[in-house]
Amino acid sequence: MQYTFASRMGKTPRSFIREILKVTERPEIISFAGGLPSPALFPVERLAETAKAVIMEDGPAALQYATTEGHLPLREWIAERYHSRLGMDVSPDEILITNGSQQSLDLIGKVFIDPGSRVAIERPGYLGAIQAFSLFEPEFLGVPLTEEGPDPAVLHAVLTDENPRIFYGVPNSQNPSGITWSIENRHRIAEEIQRSETILIEDDAYGELRFSGDQMPAMRSFLPDQTVMTGSFSKIIAPGMRMGWICAPHEIMEQIITAKQGTDLHSNILSQRIIARFLADYSIDEHISKITDAYAHQRDCMLAAIKEHFPEGVTCTRPEGGMFLWVTLPDRYSSTELFKRALAENVAILPGVPFYADGGGESTMRLNFSNASEEQIWEGISRLGKVLHQYLLAGTTVTNN
Amino acid sequence: MQYTFASRMGKTPRSFIREILKVTERPEIISFAGGLPSPALFPVERLAETAKAVIMEDGPAALQYATTEGHLPLREWIAERYHSRLGMDVSPDEILITNGSQQSLDLIGKVFIDPGSRVAIERPGYLGAIQAFSLFEPEFLGVPLTEEGPDPAVLHAVLTDENPRIFYGVPNSQNPSGITWSIENRHRIAEEIQRSETILIEDDAYGELRFSGDQMPAMRSFLPDQTVMTGSFSKIIAPGMRMGWICAPHEIMEQIITAKQGTDLHSNILSQRIIARFLADYSIDEHISKITDAYAHQRDCMLAAIKEHFPEGVTCTRPEGGMFLWVTLPDRYSSTELFKRALAENVAILPGVPFYADGGGESTMRLNFSNASEEQIWEGISRLGKVLHQYLLAGTTVTNN
Repeated sequence: MQYTFASRMGKTPRSFIREILKVTERPEIISFAGGLPSPALFPVERLAETAKAVIMEDGPAALQYATTEGHLPLREWIAERYHSRLGMDVSPDEILITNGSQQSLDLIGKVFIDPGSRVAIERPGYLGAIQAFSLFEPEFLGVPLTEEGPDPAVLHAVLTDENPRIFYGVPNSQNPSGITWSIENRHRIAEEIQRSETILIEDDAYGELRFSGDQMPAMRSFLPDQTVMTGSFSKIIAPGMRMGWICAPHEIMEQIITAKQGTDLHSNILSQRIIARFLADYSIDEHISKITDAYAHQRDCMLAAIKEHFPEGVTCTRPEGGMFLWVTLPDRYSSTELFKRALAENVAILPGVPFYADGGGESTMRLNFSNASEEQIWEGISRLGKVLHQYLLAGTTVTNN
Repeated sequence: MQYTFASRMGKTPRSFIREILKVTERPEIISFAGGLPSPALFPVERLAETAKAVIMEDGPAALQYATTEGHLPLREWIAERYHSRLGMDVSPDEILITNGSQQSLDLIGKVFIDPGSRVAIERPGYLGAIQAFSLFEPEFLGVPLTEEGPDPAVLHAVLTDENPRIFYGVPNSQNPSGITWSIENRHRIAEEIQRSETILIEDDAYGELRFSGDQMPAMRSFLPDQTVMTGSFSKIIAPGMRMGWICAPHEIMEQIITAKQGTDLHSNILSQRIIARFLADYSIDEHISKITDAYAHQRDCMLAAIKEHFPEGVTCTRPEGGMFLWVTLPDRYSSTELFKRALAENVAILPGVPFYADGGGESTMRLNFSNASEEQIWEGISRLGKVLHQYLLAGTTVTNN
């Protein structure tokens, strides 16, 4: 039979990453394509004990329907963490627990985006946000990233000329680029937004994973009434339980609660209680130190291997945190072509095109360093270097013909 | 500052139930207002052991990002259960795990409903569906329920004249009415739908909770290409983990996968594995028998108490399963007024109005029998009977003046 689907489905990109990741799951492949945190760092035994203790001690309350806003002790922990880490005064009432950051983006899309609404986003921007927002049929406006973060002159023009409903960005160790907005740029962007009616969506998925450089103030500190912040336990505990949160001013939070209730009533209360108890029983700072030590080492390996093996003219970012770095080929080369050539050598990279909501990015790619061992990084980057040398050499030949 | 929200937010009803349930949570109140399964029947110890075993034995795989479709052994179990319980041949590829039935409805809304799309729904209809679908701004068309299920003549007219995208119904022990569609009516409704382009959304949240009467065939058996079925572990294991599923033909499932990925990537893999292992290690049939024995007894108590205490002219359904029965007052009486009077006597009922997507229902109310003890049922219904006698007597007086 012929099915009629909602028009939004025709406007939502099929998941390019999903298709690519299927290809790259073969065990012989060294993959820098995915975005997985290191499973070796998951606190398996502690979570196993915690899960059992929560169910036995909390009993039916850990298994019954629960409130839409989420488990209060968990929301209190998040509010306190915002205070101790970022000096922010946030009430637990301004926090709602979601099924990971991806659901935070879905709820934000529901609350803010009508078909045709303008949505400003970094260029490159986080693919998950492009997918989540696409379901609400916005018009995307790209704001190019410099090494300091979004270009404030372009942002000024976009805010002034297009009045977008929201501007979505990842100020700390962005996915995909690894870039952290500089302090000067944070001030300039805050000024631009303050002069506009646009809401800043500050996705802070990687804020706790900072290896080097100073702690940066949250954009919300400058714009408390004009910022919706999102956070996640995926990168500091484990992603499989899908636990994240939204922090929003009360009036916006009211709308988010209505949207959340219609969407799935509330988030998994068992997992909320497991996370809350894990945070109460163990030192999260010690655990995060383990993760950042490991990731800093993996990043250093990857940067050293790139320096040794990549040809001149191929540039990359030097992330101060997070899980990714961003590689740019000389202009006329295609990372989609490179993906194919690298796969033939059993190395996987992620082409940058799907991170450009309004087109472009053909010569860029993302490399993940959190889910590969030191040996895999050296071997994989070495192979990728050879493929790059051949590709760039061939390209030159073609151009000269 | 002034916020601009998406137009859908103005069209989504604030949760009436949520506000009411806050009032009725006071410990001195006997509440028939909620929709909670009995927490005394949650398999607490078994789930505690299972949770620990899953994390220890499956290790990082129970905590890492996972596939959008859901844990394959769980989808295989659901397919096999459809076969053994309903004689249906379903492939695990036609099943996707969701965060409970409410998310199934959100995903169905995303895939099928454009602003202004027509959505047919039982009258009264499930409030959660009204809320989920409202976020996609449809026009609702009510199809009145008789004791046999939806009125086929009205359905015929609605399908013919309005060509709705979907018709949503709960054929087994419906929430809120407790009504189960009769076998004759199932055939007639299947014929009507088959002649149309409308997709049937068959919400089977209560199919496993049937205490009396024959097992009914699923509507999907008659309409395999034209039905999207939803199911849930909330009523047969526990709701707090938010575990449900969608069963849909392949072409529709492709769209649902895209929507699910944009919405929250995938459902909680730890809870999926806990449920799958619980189903493998213990007899679900024995567990369901305990639940249905208890609920059948609670229903019998409530029906006996109603017979003894309610005045003439107040009618109620006699559900063959599920958790609710449905009470209708004489025409000119308001269950909202009754709610206030009952609350003064520390008894809570749920007025029927929010279950009517297109208005009406003032003289109806829902009573939940699964979450109250025998003593509470007798005491609560006795108090409610007194309030009703006074209200109906007062009404007569007023009418006679």
